[in-house]
Amino acid sequence: MRDHVTRREYNDWVSECAALAIACGYPVQRSMIHDSVGLIMGQDQYAAFVNGLWSREPYELFAIFEALNEPAIEGLPKAGLAWAEYGGLCDKLMIVHPGKFCSPHYHWRKTEYYEVVLGEMDVFYAPEIINDGQLEIAIDDMINHKTMPRGDRWPDRVVLPNGREGSYERLTEYRCLRPGDPKFVVHRKHLHAFGCPRDALTPVVIREVSNYSHEPTTVGKAGLLEAWQHIHDNNFLHPGLNESRLSNTIVDG
Amino acid sequence: MRDHVTRREYNDWVSECAALAIACGYPVQRSMIHDSVGLIMGQDQYAAFVNGLWSREPYELFAIFEALNEPAIEGLPKAGLAWAEYGGLCDKLMIVHPGKFCSPHYHWRKTEYYEVVLGEMDVFYAPEIINDGQLEIAIDDMINHKTMPRGDRWPDRVVLPNGREGSYERLTEYRCLRPGDPKFVVHRKHLHAFGCPRDALTPVVIREVSNYSHEPTTVGKAGLLEAWQHIHDNNFLHPGLNESRLSNTIVDG
Amino acid sequence: MRDHVTRREYNDWVSECAALAIACGYPVQRSMIHDSVGLIMGQDQYAAFVNGLWSREPYELFAIFEALNEPAIEGLPKAGLAWAEYGGLCDKLMIVHPGKFCSPHYHWRKTEYYEVVLGEMDVFYAPEIINDGQLEIAIDDMINHKTMPRGDRWPDRVVLPNGREGSYERLTEYRCLRPGDPKFVVHRKHLHAFGCPRDALTPVVIREVSNYSHEPTTVGKAGLLEAWQHIHDNNFLHPGLNESRLSNTIVDG
Amino acid sequence: MRDHVTRREYNDWVSECAALAIACGYPVQRSMIHDSVGLIMGQDQYAAFVNGLWSREPYELFAIFEALNEPAIEGLPKAGLAWAEYGGLCDKLMIVHPGKFCSPHYHWRKTEYYEVVLGEMDVFYAPEIINDGQLEIAIDDMINHKTMPRGDRWPDRVVLPNGREGSYERLTEYRCLRPGDPKFVVHRKHLHAFGCPRDALTPVVIREVSNYSHEPTTVGKAGLLEAWQHIHDNNFLHPGLNESRLSNTIVDG
Repeated sequence: MRDHVTRREYNDWVSECAALAIACGYPVQRSMIHDSVGLIMGQDQYAAFVNGLWSREPYELFAIFEALNEPAIEGLPKAGLAWAEYGGLCDKLMIVHPGKFCSPHYHWRKTEYYEVVLGEMDVFYAPEIINDGQLEIAIDDMINHKTMPRGDRWPDRVVLPNGREGSYERLTEYRCLRPGDPKFVVHRKHLHAFGCPRDALTPVVIREVSNYSHEPTTVGKAGLLEAWQHIHDNNFLHPGLNESRLSNTIVDG
Repeated sequence: MRDHVTRREYNDWVSECAALAIACGYPVQRSMIHDSVGLIMGQDQYAAFVNGLWSREPYELFAIFEALNEPAIEGLPKAGLAWAEYGGLCDKLMIVHPGKFCSPHYHWRKTEYYEVVLGEMDVFYAPEIINDGQLEIAIDDMINHKTMPRGDRWPDRVVLPNGREGSYERLTEYRCLRPGDPKFVVHRKHLHAFGCPRDALTPVVIREVSNYSHEPTTVGKAGLLEAWQHIHDNNFLHPGLNESRLSNTIVDG
Repeated sequence: MRDHVTRREYNDWVSECAALAIACGYPVQRSMIHDSVGLIMGQDQYAAFVNGLWSREPYELFAIFEALNEPAIEGLPKAGLAWAEYGGLCDKLMIVHPGKFCSPHYHWRKTEYYEVVLGEMDVFYAPEIINDGQLEIAIDDMINHKTMPRGDRWPDRVVLPNGREGSYERLTEYRCLRPGDPKFVVHRKHLHAFGCPRDALTPVVIREVSNYSHEPTTVGKAGLLEAWQHIHDNNFLHPGLNESRLSNTIVDG
Repeated sequence: MRDHVTRREYNDWVSECAALAIACGYPVQRSMIHDSVGLIMGQDQYAAFVNGLWSREPYELFAIFEALNEPAIEGLPKAGLAWAEYGGLCDKLMIVHPGKFCSPHYHWRKTEYYEVVLGEMDVFYAPEIINDGQLEIAIDDMINHKTMPRGDRWPDRVVLPNGREGSYERLTEYRCLRPGDPKFVVHRKHLHAFGCPRDALTPVVIREVSNYSHEPTTVGKAGLLEAWQHIHDNNFLHPGLNESRLSNTIVDG
């Protein structure tokens, strides 16, 4: 049972993605290439490295290059600070290999939108604000004037990661996004996941802009605004993913 | 004295810019091409059309394609609504022809950042929060923990628009941004302006992401969140530009 | 009746095209921008400038940026020189505005192929070697083992230039080429023309590689291999276009 | 001692390169992805796979996607056929990983030129026609009116493949090519090699256009014009590379 990624496997993956990001025009700096670029979503997903990123097998892992995570509190009236954690600006490029996924989750604070710059993006989402009995405040105390648009039927070709099918069940809506399409917004507190078609010639490359990202990774956390370091804003449906920050087990070899 | 742009001049300009935007990979939709794309910054700037956009003469006008202007209030606790006008997400592509400028201004609410995707961008700015005696709240009541970085000396080659030199005086800092450079943040309440080098082979093409844009134009205003339609958030230094929303005088021909 | 283009009209056109070429990644050098970039195919086509390049009216004119025109005779056994004028390597970027065309013609010597990098290209062609009674040598004395592929029906939307419809009649085949499509070869001695759909958001931008180009323009001719300067290799069907090298009448203004 | 590449290693390499090619705008078709894309230049170069393509170790191997290899004999007067093997048109995209090389060689028939579309290309070449005592015809019987341009000094950072340093000795000239540079021509019968700087963030991606390519590989050979299948036109300096067509030993795993 694979419980790690080797240094070579990790570097090959991230190097390949960095080159693709640069080819797609994203302003990757050397400082943006580090051990938290690859997001491996749970211990059982290291199995993806047995046959490699190009095996087209369904696993939850992908790469993120973050160009900016700006709290945007400068010049804000101090009275507004309490709500600033719902604002801010974050700019990322995400790269998902064919057959791979980002695990279903929602953000309490963060609204985000996508622009596909290469390939095709399968987006899965729930059209309504999540209401799972664990909300810190009642739905009635939130602004909720515009639900997300209805999507299409899931295409038959989608093969979900083994043992994780259940966490996708509430994401009833589907959209396929392509280069040139309008920006696609996912509002905060809405369940979403995404993937790359398994028979694609290229990974899907996605620009994501969002509010400040209260990072899900241990490495990313180090760069956060100090006052916000305790915040977990990535709520995954798959059991166990929320218990701690995501971190990669990279071993020599 | 020119006091208008003809329909043909306007359409030629915007069509050329739309094609360039698409060539640069920006997801321009037909609905994003309209009579508020071209931003002509004051009555005296129509003179730019006498010799045309490629004359390399210094004037203040440029084009904006706005792909998204999202209040991002969905799912926000109602208690936070009062501060939401400092948040939100806006995504634009801006195109400035050689020798042309965006006029010096600041936003009370909006923080923004730039990514150059073609050509070179001359950025001019003030490193400190503006303090012009007209602030609605005192500097001490704002968050102000990180000033903007020092810039470089202005290059000698810059030729400012005739009669508007004075409005650039407080923008002491300069940066030249190019494709591949790190994203450049301009915080709210900081004076800024920008331009395209006059001897350039191409217009400069800039991705701008920011907080919600409380549009400076009459046409753009129509699309704003209703509760925020009264807000003016673009404060220009040049006399007269703030008195009303910017609107284009386009005449037949 | 328009019989010229003004300096400003010409420069605006070529500057716009050069910027678009660079945005599409073509290696445009300043030396490649000159008075033979714009190809205006006959005296009556200056009328295109009355309403301008973006009027979508049907005229025959487009822009060519030539990065290389290499005889490729270096290192050739001298015995092969007599046939070298059928060889060589030429690399160009062509930009056709919506509704505009390249006039029907064939080359006695030059085989060429297209790769569309932006927009859509309407290609019109004849599937067989031309046999117009004016051939210098008999069809039987040429290699002719592979005809060009059959095309599609012409789409109804095509509006041909006024008074030139007849010259398109023998180009019975049609193909629409888009970015990502296989390279499309037009063999020597085959009639061809092309255009950009009139309702397009962008000009069509085409990489053309071919054998040595025995230039149709007076300016281009100056750069040719001396021994080949007398050669005319562009045979246009429209009467009058073959009588001399094409040259632009550009007047002050 | 490594004497093969595994199926997985090979597919990972070629899949990565195909995605990068598409991201760079090259029109890759599924039929262009096969077992002759990866060019491994000799038995001892399989060692490159021990630490992988991203190890930055110096080896001679790279990927080629060939979009077109057109003899361009259609419509040629039959009397010219004897010389047609010096003509034709070939269009390729080549991808070299950091630290890797194409081995020094020359073509008897083929003139070629480069356009870098991503990264930096180290080009090494000899400025004069090769004269190695093995020429089929005398130098005096060839056209030789224009030598290649002088280059720069080799940069100190270049680390050549182990045991192959000698084959680079006669390539005294060096040029670094970057996106936007003028096309760089290598005339037939001139020694050349190239590589990607070992500390680069991306592989170098190069468009190569040339005369017809009398393929060096066994797989490529199958697609050649029948009359020309016997021709070897790739003359490598390293001993042993010329004895047969290059072919890959790909084993299960």
